[in-house]
Amino acid sequence: MLEMFSCPQAVAVIGASRDKDKLGHGVLSNIIEHGYPGQVYPINPKADEILGLKCYPSVLDVPDPIDLAVMVIPNKYVSAALEECGQKGVKGVVIISAGFREAGLEGVRMERELVAIAKRHGMRLIGPNCLGVIDTICPLDASFAAGMPPQGKIAFMSQSGALCTAILDWALAAEIGFSRFVSLGNKADVDEVDLLAAWEDDPHSTVILTYIEGLSEGREFMEVARRVTRRIPVIAVKSGSTDAGSRAVSSHTGSLAGSARAYESAFRQSGVLRAESIQHLFDYSLAFAYQPVLRGGRIAIVTNAGGPGVMATDALEREGLSLASLSHETIDFLRDNLPAAANIYNPIDVLGDAPTDRYALALEAALKEEGVNGVIVILTPQVMTRIEETAEAVGRIAAGYDKPVLGCFMGEARVRAGIKVLNQHRIPNYSFPERAVGALKAMLDYRRWLDRPPLEIEEFDVDRERVKGIFDQVRADGRQTIGDAEARDVMQAYGIRIPASKLATSAEEAVEFAEEIGYPLVMKITSPDILHKTDIGGVKLGLSDATDVRDAFDLLVYRATRYMPDAEIWGCLVQEMVRGGKEVIVGMNCDPQFGPLMMFGLGGIYVEALKDVAFRIAPFSRQEAQEMIREIRSCSLLKGVRGERPSDIEAIVDTLLRLSQLVTDFPEIMEMDINPLIVFEAGRGVVGVDMRLVLAA
Amino acid sequence: MLEMFSCPQAVAVIGASRDKDKLGHGVLSNIIEHGYPGQVYPINPKADEILGLKCYPSVLDVPDPIDLAVMVIPNKYVSAALEECGQKGVKGVVIISAGFREAGLEGVRMERELVAIAKRHGMRLIGPNCLGVIDTICPLDASFAAGMPPQGKIAFMSQSGALCTAILDWALAAEIGFSRFVSLGNKADVDEVDLLAAWEDDPHSTVILTYIEGLSEGREFMEVARRVTRRIPVIAVKSGSTDAGSRAVSSHTGSLAGSARAYESAFRQSGVLRAESIQHLFDYSLAFAYQPVLRGGRIAIVTNAGGPGVMATDALEREGLSLASLSHETIDFLRDNLPAAANIYNPIDVLGDAPTDRYALALEAALKEEGVNGVIVILTPQVMTRIEETAEAVGRIAAGYDKPVLGCFMGEARVRAGIKVLNQHRIPNYSFPERAVGALKAMLDYRRWLDRPPLEIEEFDVDRERVKGIFDQVRADGRQTIGDAEARDVMQAYGIRIPASKLATSAEEAVEFAEEIGYPLVMKITSPDILHKTDIGGVKLGLSDATDVRDAFDLLVYRATRYMPDAEIWGCLVQEMVRGGKEVIVGMNCDPQFGPLMMFGLGGIYVEALKDVAFRIAPFSRQEAQEMIREIRSCSLLKGVRGERPSDIEAIVDTLLRLSQLVTDFPEIMEMDINPLIVFEAGRGVVGVDMRLVLAA
Repeated sequence: MLEMFSCPQAVAVIGASRDKDKLGHGVLSNIIEHGYPGQVYPINPKADEILGLKCYPSVLDVPDPIDLAVMVIPNKYVSAALEECGQKGVKGVVIISAGFREAGLEGVRMERELVAIAKRHGMRLIGPNCLGVIDTICPLDASFAAGMPPQGKIAFMSQSGALCTAILDWALAAEIGFSRFVSLGNKADVDEVDLLAAWEDDPHSTVILTYIEGLSEGREFMEVARRVTRRIPVIAVKSGSTDAGSRAVSSHTGSLAGSARAYESAFRQSGVLRAESIQHLFDYSLAFAYQPVLRGGRIAIVTNAGGPGVMATDALEREGLSLASLSHETIDFLRDNLPAAANIYNPIDVLGDAPTDRYALALEAALKEEGVNGVIVILTPQVMTRIEETAEAVGRIAAGYDKPVLGCFMGEARVRAGIKVLNQHRIPNYSFPERAVGALKAMLDYRRWLDRPPLEIEEFDVDRERVKGIFDQVRADGRQTIGDAEARDVMQAYGIRIPASKLATSAEEAVEFAEEIGYPLVMKITSPDILHKTDIGGVKLGLSDATDVRDAFDLLVYRATRYMPDAEIWGCLVQEMVRGGKEVIVGMNCDPQFGPLMMFGLGGIYVEALKDVAFRIAPFSRQEAQEMIREIRSCSLLKGVRGERPSDIEAIVDTLLRLSQLVTDFPEIMEMDINPLIVFEAGRGVVGVDMRLVLAA
Repeated sequence: MLEMFSCPQAVAVIGASRDKDKLGHGVLSNIIEHGYPGQVYPINPKADEILGLKCYPSVLDVPDPIDLAVMVIPNKYVSAALEECGQKGVKGVVIISAGFREAGLEGVRMERELVAIAKRHGMRLIGPNCLGVIDTICPLDASFAAGMPPQGKIAFMSQSGALCTAILDWALAAEIGFSRFVSLGNKADVDEVDLLAAWEDDPHSTVILTYIEGLSEGREFMEVARRVTRRIPVIAVKSGSTDAGSRAVSSHTGSLAGSARAYESAFRQSGVLRAESIQHLFDYSLAFAYQPVLRGGRIAIVTNAGGPGVMATDALEREGLSLASLSHETIDFLRDNLPAAANIYNPIDVLGDAPTDRYALALEAALKEEGVNGVIVILTPQVMTRIEETAEAVGRIAAGYDKPVLGCFMGEARVRAGIKVLNQHRIPNYSFPERAVGALKAMLDYRRWLDRPPLEIEEFDVDRERVKGIFDQVRADGRQTIGDAEARDVMQAYGIRIPASKLATSAEEAVEFAEEIGYPLVMKITSPDILHKTDIGGVKLGLSDATDVRDAFDLLVYRATRYMPDAEIWGCLVQEMVRGGKEVIVGMNCDPQFGPLMMFGLGGIYVEALKDVAFRIAPFSRQEAQEMIREIRSCSLLKGVRGERPSDIEAIVDTLLRLSQLVTDFPEIMEMDINPLIVFEAGRGVVGVDMRLVLAA
């Protein structure tokens, strides 16, 4: 799938130019000079021949079939040329030309036209407004980039073409190889989802990198990524991750940035590893591209300097990995074979004067050790350090073990040659211990993702029809907001326990219901027009006998009519007063990219002041719901502190899953929250006291 | 001060060698080859002449005066040679030789001997176990490093010699200049404190960098750093900042690592900028060394690519800086002079095809703008980008303004030459936007430090003698722990309000006191032998009349004698029951390096489960106490949430300051906490309910 972009039989360059300063020249010359083995057809009505190739006025004039066209012509000519491509039977078109969606309303219109033409002819488009595509396997360099990267195992796609140029420039200097390299541009047609799917089983790639500013098909992305990441690690940089950044994205590419929380959840839930910056993206990708998978978090450090060993240790602890404990055998072996002053525990310090064989011995001992999952080899260029020889030994030994070995040769002028040797042995080198540890952390995160059971969405037996009926009625009334009795019905329909309650239309009825339910009680004014009952004094708590109830009924009705004379009053709700337990909040906001984003937190100040909340995109699994609860800082309060009994966490999990089902069943729910949900001690369940829903207009 | 190490008149190399593989050769040749202008005397009893210089058997045989000696001889010969240096009148000695404190107990003894000899003769020592010292101003390279860095404005000191070699290697490759470069080694004599003081007024340095594993004179460090940082920025990397890291430090250099919290507080309170890693240390140092001070946090970004502009914006927001808002004049100017597709707001996007003059125009407009404090110039190497020419223009324009301009030329192969041009213009370049922003954040932190008023310690009128009397009595009794009545006396003596209370020795007396104090009351068993009263049921709350009090007395005494038959019972404390208010905790732990480290947090789960606490080293100022309170996440609870009235934060500040005075007045206090301190609403003060103190043995 999409192989017309990676390995076409014949390529046309529409807008090929003789002028060396034009992109249309650069693209053609890149295709030819970087070894493309197929047929190349320059298209230019004003030339007969360019770079030794016969030139045609249009693709329709080319006698043989063409499967890929690259366009480098002004925006206004693109749609006509695309139409010709369609007639010619071209399968894929890379539109490098700019001046579409990114350039305003007229551009948006033109871009839509391109998509329509492509669809009509069954063509796929990359771009417009991109740098082009590079495939080192074919090889095909259909881009205007300066220089082609060496062949390697990294597949890369980017929404930003400029970033592509910077990344290629690094790759060239550091001799980092790529398999596929795609500049996505405006993503009028082909986007991240298509390429993830295309690269899922690519035998030439061992890691996929992507730079994302915004996704337009969030749920499809999650679905495909969840599957693809089981086979190949996917690392993403998402820019626009803060509010200010998002504004900059919008002003730039017109793409909807989506909330940072939603992207964070989406990546985590679909196994996409998030890199905080391009530097992290590189750091992680080399580890994945070059080294075997990490099986656990216990790391050994071999170093010729104490300080950097300490820094690596600090970083391991910060990132949640650990210094491996060495076995007695290994320690004895190191004691017998290293100088007395060496540190034979982990970090293994082979001392400043360490010759190559001392490094080799320590590295081999660490790799042999069962309790070690990976090794960082730190080297500082001291006078007697044999840098290249040591690099050679590290590469040779690491190749014999199925555990990741990362280099941290610190410095530049003298160590450069050593880093080159490491690179030849596919040992990634990191200038600083913290960066090597960061890469191991990404590998461990990926390991943990692979170890997770596949996503399983539980289905509860609920009364979906009842909720549908309520929503239909609400819409029929021209309303969008749902609360009170209707919301309680929704909770009940989805199996969430609510306090016993009845709507009384007179004081006598209120007393009658009160005797049925039992004291103490709460009473609330009930009116479709009064949303914020407490603001008008419309709620009375702790009513303990019939007199209280009768008085409360009259008072609440009096207040409601006084403050809002035109409100329609349905009566007063007589409700069981829930006592004890802890308040938690479960909420949902519909994210424009990813759909229902659910939130969990402890009630009151924990949510409001401490913003201690966790998010997941619905639907999610039981495990994800459990993690969501464990994730909040104040979770220990639910587990029970100071001798308190633990709260019924499993009942919260159940509620989260039932609500996840609700918001998935009814995508028209834009907002939802149950506040508070009261959770009692373990075994005693939860009660949803108040719920509010907002439907789409 | 210490000028014998930076600019001596004559240097002796003790252990100079003809053997090129020996350090004693390397050091001598570095001194000669790297341009030292003074006299050089090789000392070696077995040679007549080395590298063309006459050789002497001992410093005592040199006819002329010597002010600096460098030792590169086996450890066992060092003390004798040092004695000779003393007799010769040498002022400073750099001991490169290893095998001292880092090598075990015998090494510790030998190192102490060196210190004694030096002291006797009034000599200063650097090392032992170090790489040596480099001074590019003199110039003097008395080290065994490979290559001397260019002259520059960065003064550097490091506890790790290995790290020095790595850093020199980078500096050589990146053409980064240093003024002073000192490897401190074991710090037997000269340490960070001495060098900070020596470099305070150094006209050749504009920033001081230091790599620290552990400090032995924490309080002196703070005192000197607090002064020095007012004149020159000091940036520190502290390794061993996590528990695992600290263990690695101890096993390594034998230096006490001190708690991470204490270092964090010490650096902040003395204006030392903390770098998280060596990479950050470099990033920050270049900004300080090359660029003028930053005056505020409003930053403009000029870029030829949208994506990296967004990343920079994200980073600004994360780090607490902001995108500057451009004035109408600037926006109009940019609109009139940039292409229509350019983004004329901030980030200013000059577009992918930006020629040099477009960059120049945008940068100049941003620098002219009053609302802009600093600029980041981002460049991605697109086909038409004129990299070196743009670098040249950036350097030229930046030189005309007193605002920092940082480069972010992304890539390597093609941009390398441009980065070199930037470096010549003293524009630091960062490979990634996040790193440029990190450097600006460090500059802003420094700006804020400079803007702080000088440290002012308030002195309260307290009854110091009374506390002294209590402590004397406690020590006389052979006790270390203080609680109950004695602790209440301590609080009272330092002006902290406590609940009204009286110690009753009989039920009748208890009732009598109860009537005086007023109900409701608390009663507590009082015994020097019972520390955890609640554990044995030794506390009764909410006593509301004489019968309650009488019953409680009998019950508490009965329980105490039953559970601890041998306990000495002093009676029962009859205490006012404090109602309302919020519980906070104020604590102190004596840090081995920095002394009293005070802690503040909200009581109960906030401290225990959420670990939401703030630290400062005592004594501290009112401003620092206020910041300490604001720093905790749950501070909003004190400010009043959900319509609550705010708590009396100023009363907490006062209490913190009084306790700061207490622990400073009595350094024998090893631990202290008031838990809970009850804080009432604003204007109503605080009450210290329980205090516990532990004195040094």
